[in-house]
Amino acid sequence: MTLTTPPVTRPAATTTPQREEILDFHLGGKLRVHSSVELTTRRALSIAYSPGVAEVSDAIAERAELAGTYTWAGRLVAVVSDGTAVLGLGNIGPAAAMPVMEGKAALFKTFAGLDSIPLVLPRMSVEDTVETLVRLRHSFGAVNLEDVSAPLCFELEAALDEALDCPVMHDDQHGTAVVTLAGLRGAATVTGRRLQDLRVAVIGAGASGTACAKLLRAAGIEDITVVDSRGIVEADRTDLNPAKTELAAITNPRGLTGGIDQALRGADVLLGLSCTTVPEELIATMDPDPILFGLSNPRPEVSPEIAARYASVYATGRSDYPNQVNNVLAFPGIFKGALDAGAPRITEAMKMAAVDAISALAAEDLTPTTILPSPLDARVAPAVAAAVQAAALPS
Amino acid sequence: MTLTTPPVTRPAATTTPQREEILDFHLGGKLRVHSSVELTTRRALSIAYSPGVAEVSDAIAERAELAGTYTWAGRLVAVVSDGTAVLGLGNIGPAAAMPVMEGKAALFKTFAGLDSIPLVLPRMSVEDTVETLVRLRHSFGAVNLEDVSAPLCFELEAALDEALDCPVMHDDQHGTAVVTLAGLRGAATVTGRRLQDLRVAVIGAGASGTACAKLLRAAGIEDITVVDSRGIVEADRTDLNPAKTELAAITNPRGLTGGIDQALRGADVLLGLSCTTVPEELIATMDPDPILFGLSNPRPEVSPEIAARYASVYATGRSDYPNQVNNVLAFPGIFKGALDAGAPRITEAMKMAAVDAISALAAEDLTPTTILPSPLDARVAPAVAAAVQAAALPS
Repeated sequence: MTLTTPPVTRPAATTTPQREEILDFHLGGKLRVHSSVELTTRRALSIAYSPGVAEVSDAIAERAELAGTYTWAGRLVAVVSDGTAVLGLGNIGPAAAMPVMEGKAALFKTFAGLDSIPLVLPRMSVEDTVETLVRLRHSFGAVNLEDVSAPLCFELEAALDEALDCPVMHDDQHGTAVVTLAGLRGAATVTGRRLQDLRVAVIGAGASGTACAKLLRAAGIEDITVVDSRGIVEADRTDLNPAKTELAAITNPRGLTGGIDQALRGADVLLGLSCTTVPEELIATMDPDPILFGLSNPRPEVSPEIAARYASVYATGRSDYPNQVNNVLAFPGIFKGALDAGAPRITEAMKMAAVDAISALAAEDLTPTTILPSPLDARVAPAVAAAVQAAALPS
Repeated sequence: MTLTTPPVTRPAATTTPQREEILDFHLGGKLRVHSSVELTTRRALSIAYSPGVAEVSDAIAERAELAGTYTWAGRLVAVVSDGTAVLGLGNIGPAAAMPVMEGKAALFKTFAGLDSIPLVLPRMSVEDTVETLVRLRHSFGAVNLEDVSAPLCFELEAALDEALDCPVMHDDQHGTAVVTLAGLRGAATVTGRRLQDLRVAVIGAGASGTACAKLLRAAGIEDITVVDSRGIVEADRTDLNPAKTELAAITNPRGLTGGIDQALRGADVLLGLSCTTVPEELIATMDPDPILFGLSNPRPEVSPEIAARYASVYATGRSDYPNQVNNVLAFPGIFKGALDAGAPRITEAMKMAAVDAISALAAEDLTPTTILPSPLDARVAPAVAAAVQAAALPS
């Protein structure tokens, strides 16, 4: 069993979980299905199953909307992945994606009380994946897309949103974007900056980088530059896919060309979503006291040591440093709110409502090391759910 | 709310559950997904989800068989239906089938401790249903087909068995057949008959009638006559589908033609799986002291009043009469045994092992009103599982 070396600066009070402990923790998987009714009498058996259950089926056959009242399908989230972009591991396939999907389902239950089931699929065309979920439509009430690689994920999410009359959200995009925007708001406030005036360099133009850039734009931030592995995403490049062409059209207002160095020079914010490492000399070219979000796991784009020398605010995706940008602050409440509202889709207004709800909780105790609520803060999901539900309803 | 009239002869001590009580019982559905791990600390969060879970995904990506160790997929039963033959309600579709599938999942947990999820699909070609489940292959470890109409169910089960490297069983066929055969054994013993010598009239040539006829033949019963809505299933008929042609080839050894009256004349056993009512005058033509199995729900083919005048043994599918022939005696243990054995399919030997295990428990207290263990007897599923597991392993 390989043991990874713990990072030098890990807090002394905790130890980083090692492979053996992690595997032991996962023995048998992390999910269980329980019956919410006791089936220990003949009477209960005859109600929950044959012959009594026929009354329920009969009622739904007569009035389809009763499925939402008398079955779990209407409130069930399908956590769907094709295993093409699993954490930092890449395209490892559906079987190896399952532990992550189980974890997601466990988080849905823990934080929002939602029932969910993982459904893993092979890498297929958008049409085939959509077809599969359309066929399964009456088995669930919402779809959380997870760990699907870009740019397929953009097309797939849009196609699912069109084909299914229920909430669909690719969490790697929008969950990350919602929490990131809430975190940036807090960081701007504690450093005396105006959110709209931030100059942001987004490192990484995958699922999360793209969604963050779009949501930051929607929140009024105008100066955003996105960098992919070939440099700044800008309209004159001839190698852009449709998603990046769209991104180029709404970002890079100063018409920059070149690489990450050009994007970072004078920027207030580094938003890392790239699985790369940004060298210290580039951080040194940013605006003084920059806001550094190194969100790649387990290795942030900017190390804690370097961040300590430059950053006014430092956020990562890790649980062992302050300011953890963790999707769990968003997705449980977003889906809960959408399902509670009976919303047919998750709109921009609902995502912004989620941002507002997270920001409002963070504002109660805003410091450079607490720009976001703790991922374990049990108040967050209900607050997000209520805000999202309200935003979903016609005003 | 419509209230159905309770049957005249219901036992005075209990009341038949009414529609309102049944619907109330089903509010919100019958299933819940729980996390089996506590996620209330940052450490647990970092193990069960990002970044720790990457170790588990990585391990499975390297060695695919570890999915069975570290995820729930390998031990999860998908309860799959297209809603084309739901209880006695017919083709009411996937949404209305869901309460039955939830009930099935609840029974899997209650009796065998198995986790299962309902997946409902629209009515599709065999090819499309197989394709859908092949795509979902890494999401589950076994398939319980349910409430799929005949004759599609025969072709679908065979195609799934071929396409998936995991146990597949259409419970309406084989669960019913296993329990029926165990019940018939008990009935033969208590009435001093030899199982192999029974003359059996099977009323109904749908999923369960066909599977029962085949399993009874496999158990050595030679004189079986099957009747469908057009009369005795026999080789000279020109209206038989492939499944019934196959049935005609292995039944009706006396070459009978005609209707239900010809099949019942002189028979020892009426095995009703038809949703019809058999008139008293036909029962009167059977062998003296016949064995009457009226298994349709909620209305047995032979009413309790008529049975009281003729039968030596009377069995139904109902929980409010003695001798309930209930699939729950079979399917939880069969799937548990198959999954415990890591069996790639459910074989005839495994079904026969299940029959033997049920019979052995019934033999401990065999009377004309206890030819089978109670459906609530907690000893049954473990005994069936152990027998099925043993039968699945190479000897």
